[in-house]
Amino acid sequence: MMNKSVKEFLDSVAAKTPTPGGGSVAALAGAISCSLAEMVCNLTIGKKKYASVEEEMKEMAEKMAKARQQFLQLVEEDAKAFDEVMKAYKEGGDAQAALKKASQVPYETASQCISIMNDLRVIAEKGNKNSITDAGVAALIAKAAFHSALLNVKINLKYIEDKEYKQDVEKEMKEMKEEMERKFNEVIDIVEKWL
Amino acid sequence: MMNKSVKEFLDSVAAKTPTPGGGSVAALAGAISCSLAEMVCNLTIGKKKYASVEEEMKEMAEKMAKARQQFLQLVEEDAKAFDEVMKAYKEGGDAQAALKKASQVPYETASQCISIMNDLRVIAEKGNKNSITDAGVAALIAKAAFHSALLNVKINLKYIEDKEYKQDVEKEMKEMKEEMERKFNEVIDIVEKWL
Repeated sequence: MMNKSVKEFLDSVAAKTPTPGGGSVAALAGAISCSLAEMVCNLTIGKKKYASVEEEMKEMAEKMAKARQQFLQLVEEDAKAFDEVMKAYKEGGDAQAALKKASQVPYETASQCISIMNDLRVIAEKGNKNSITDAGVAALIAKAAFHSALLNVKINLKYIEDKEYKQDVEKEMKEMKEEMERKFNEVIDIVEKWL
Repeated sequence: MMNKSVKEFLDSVAAKTPTPGGGSVAALAGAISCSLAEMVCNLTIGKKKYASVEEEMKEMAEKMAKARQQFLQLVEEDAKAFDEVMKAYKEGGDAQAALKKASQVPYETASQCISIMNDLRVIAEKGNKNSITDAGVAALIAKAAFHSALLNVKINLKYIEDKEYKQDVEKEMKEMKEEMERKFNEVIDIVEKWL
């Protein structure tokens, strides 16, 4: 899917088929955030003024590149997981198992967004200040990706019958939301200081 | 830029060059939101259950397709406007004029995001309820696009000397933020009702 042109990919989102849909878009937003974060690192590396954080920025750039690849995989996995749910309903397969899988993919996307928000704090704090708004945009997009992913977890939970599973995931989501809010605010506070 | 593959585009964001950067990403997020909104319309059109909103959904689909194209243009314009600022500083051109232009492009992105948030409310309210989370994701991404664009307006304002211009834009941004918050909440309230 990611070898399509941006234009073609957007066409396939807009098309009269449910996939790629919101779950894939959430993961793609995560990937976009990582790319922007990596740019900030790359614009910091090699600058005399930032020599003291050079090693850390190199590590962060690598981490962001890796996280981007994981998000891009989640773009594909989300579409697949949704298609499996549809198939299970149509062909009388194990819809409950398919729904659980379809809830786990966006859950993974949401977890990844929290993880990169930690890194974005470091990047905003120590990276090139000429790119501070880019770090801010990366944080805004990652937060939107997070909440988008959670909407996709929730809609799958709605149809899952296993009450214990539902309760567990709902509890985790509540904690994740609090963590995201806290971490996002840390990044934005740094960004606003420089505007 | 949009004829590149998604992978290549993300590479060009991540690269050691400031463009495409946060301003282009903001506009791209707007385009992604429109694509998803159009999908919801397309999954509503032709369904018996939604026959009463068929015409409205067709209009909305067209509107979203048009808005997407405008956002895609802003992706390119943002990179160009930033490059012009850099050029003006390096070559002793009119940096103030270039900065104003560079603040107007993301301002336009932010305005567009408010405009589509109105449409997203209609789409969430009247569109296919099987796609309600997609409408929600579209709203989340459009809101992030909006705030991302405003960060890019702000960073340019920082270097603009024309105090009246700055004050005007700051006042408008404050009003836009309130409007966005109100409109976004309207969409999300509809989405949550169906989850």
